[in-house]
Amino acid sequence: MMAPPSRLLPILRRCRSSRARSLSSLASPASKAVVYDEHGAPEQVLRVADVAPVQLGERDVCVRMLAAPINPSDINRVEGVYPVRPPLPGAVAGYEGVGQVHALGPAVTAPLSPGDWVIPSPPSFGTWQTYIVKHQSVWHKVRSDVPMEYAATITVNPLTALRMLQDFVQLNPGDAIVQNGATSIVGQCVIQLAKVHGIHTINVIRDRPGSEEAKDKLKQLGADEVFTESQLDMKNVKSLLGALLEPALGFNCVGGTSASLLLKILRQGGTMVTYGGMSKRPVTAPTSYFIFKDISLRGFWLQKWMNSDKAEDCRTMIDYLLGLVHEGKLKYEMESIPFGEFSLALEKALGKHGSQPKQVVRF
Amino acid sequence: MMAPPSRLLPILRRCRSSRARSLSSLASPASKAVVYDEHGAPEQVLRVADVAPVQLGERDVCVRMLAAPINPSDINRVEGVYPVRPPLPGAVAGYEGVGQVHALGPAVTAPLSPGDWVIPSPPSFGTWQTYIVKHQSVWHKVRSDVPMEYAATITVNPLTALRMLQDFVQLNPGDAIVQNGATSIVGQCVIQLAKVHGIHTINVIRDRPGSEEAKDKLKQLGADEVFTESQLDMKNVKSLLGALLEPALGFNCVGGTSASLLLKILRQGGTMVTYGGMSKRPVTAPTSYFIFKDISLRGFWLQKWMNSDKAEDCRTMIDYLLGLVHEGKLKYEMESIPFGEFSLALEKALGKHGSQPKQVVRF
Repeated sequence: MMAPPSRLLPILRRCRSSRARSLSSLASPASKAVVYDEHGAPEQVLRVADVAPVQLGERDVCVRMLAAPINPSDINRVEGVYPVRPPLPGAVAGYEGVGQVHALGPAVTAPLSPGDWVIPSPPSFGTWQTYIVKHQSVWHKVRSDVPMEYAATITVNPLTALRMLQDFVQLNPGDAIVQNGATSIVGQCVIQLAKVHGIHTINVIRDRPGSEEAKDKLKQLGADEVFTESQLDMKNVKSLLGALLEPALGFNCVGGTSASLLLKILRQGGTMVTYGGMSKRPVTAPTSYFIFKDISLRGFWLQKWMNSDKAEDCRTMIDYLLGLVHEGKLKYEMESIPFGEFSLALEKALGKHGSQPKQVVRF
Repeated sequence: MMAPPSRLLPILRRCRSSRARSLSSLASPASKAVVYDEHGAPEQVLRVADVAPVQLGERDVCVRMLAAPINPSDINRVEGVYPVRPPLPGAVAGYEGVGQVHALGPAVTAPLSPGDWVIPSPPSFGTWQTYIVKHQSVWHKVRSDVPMEYAATITVNPLTALRMLQDFVQLNPGDAIVQNGATSIVGQCVIQLAKVHGIHTINVIRDRPGSEEAKDKLKQLGADEVFTESQLDMKNVKSLLGALLEPALGFNCVGGTSASLLLKILRQGGTMVTYGGMSKRPVTAPTSYFIFKDISLRGFWLQKWMNSDKAEDCRTMIDYLLGLVHEGKLKYEMESIPFGEFSLALEKALGKHGSQPKQVVRF
């Protein structure tokens, strides 16, 4: 259970940017936010708190948040195990989301109007609240003719998939990639984005009840092949690839033996990119794979990519991805849940109710 | 024990290149070679055999071999566990070495004269024999004012060290690298070549009796720091680096926990290159190192590099390396042993007499 929304908080001071000291007469409405003062188990340290109105600086924009997801990295930030975290105490949780422009500071020059949909881009801390006041440069206007859950989640997972397909190996139509954790949202995005570019996907999923149904779902998204890990536990694994080319690129979000399976399938000179470690086991590769198979092991972290002067590129890509959503070429399962039931959404995101779709909080 | 030099061999036919069918009247002297007809334990399948004279083609050069080392990869080829191996039966073992021009085919255009020192460059199969007949393009003339053991061993180990320092990370004077297996010949070459270019080296060696003496030896070669693995088994390992920069590049020829120590020391965004696996344990890296520390794991195999249209570059580098030998800037311990005692040299190379220097056979 979450702590109750009790006392008013140190956060009140922190929420006001220094710009708020300017003599603007505009202020945000009173807000509610999911905050934490110390790191720990999210269900213990997170609480919904009232946040007093915040004055808008000259170029600030006040946004009424519409929706924000609970991503695993949000959980890790709260737990304190993520390398980049908001300062404590009085941190507002959440990192991406979508909102609607509520009010503009008097000197805002960005082409924004009340009612426009905007996302923080690159994403930034504190999206789990009802109103946010931040400088105009933080906000990127996005199309509003897609479901808000997609606009809320378009950066962390889909952009990771897009960058990983583009940043490591030059792929041409007809080439193949291999990935594990294929049922994850990044995995689903990889399948669909690869398909858009004529790239084939070989997908690996865990052995579990319902794996046949999961295979069918991924194939409906465009997956060329889907194997359970146990299907790949054989010597001549490449015989399973049929007419597909051996993959030059692999995406690993599991680690352990699952990552080793990808290495087995990768072609000579191939690259495996690690972007997650769901099994909590390390990546292990035989010496001979490095020397004779010439494999490369790399890593991808969207937040680092974001912080490397790529914010503008990032926005172009967001527009591209939301265009695909609009065309029906990019979709993934999410569960929308009202802010009033945040505790339940958090429990689901923490896996306390079994396997659940991505939780997206609607404010 | 090696099999005795008994019957004359299928190798006689194989040794003759197709050019030998031309009507040259020149033939090599009768030769002795270390040959094998099947893969297996070297002391069981290798034998010294008589090889009949071989006729020289128009552009062939007959070389009287002076010296050739027993490298671990030579052993692996005989065992059949190396991915590129000479065809069986009738394979002559050995892959690098130095010889003296004995006779030239009538149409040889290369600037070679009898008495010149030459090495096969890139290296090629069959250096463990007293006379070799190969096309002129195989042979690279080298300086003869260095000990023949250096000319015989200058490619496989020193060139690996040189390429690894140049091919993966742009290093500038003052930068540092880290390596394990630092007492190996590649390791010793890395220390000395790095020093020539103003690069600092952090070296890791096994815990063993005599490790202090080994440290002193490496420091005399120019090592900045030498640690045993157990010294690095601490949390704040970077406190050991003193004024040295965190290394951007690591060389791993051990694997297992020793490789993990290198990863711990590498700086953010660093690259570890695996070129050997003496511990016979795989390379293991935590997921977080890929994602948050942005490490890259790569591999290096000289033979692949050689086969990528780099033969000319290779010869320039060989000359450079032998120049350093001549200047006294590149040295490493070897034991020279007469061909007549090949069995003993092989036993030593196989570790049957404890830790021994690199064995170089003199013909």
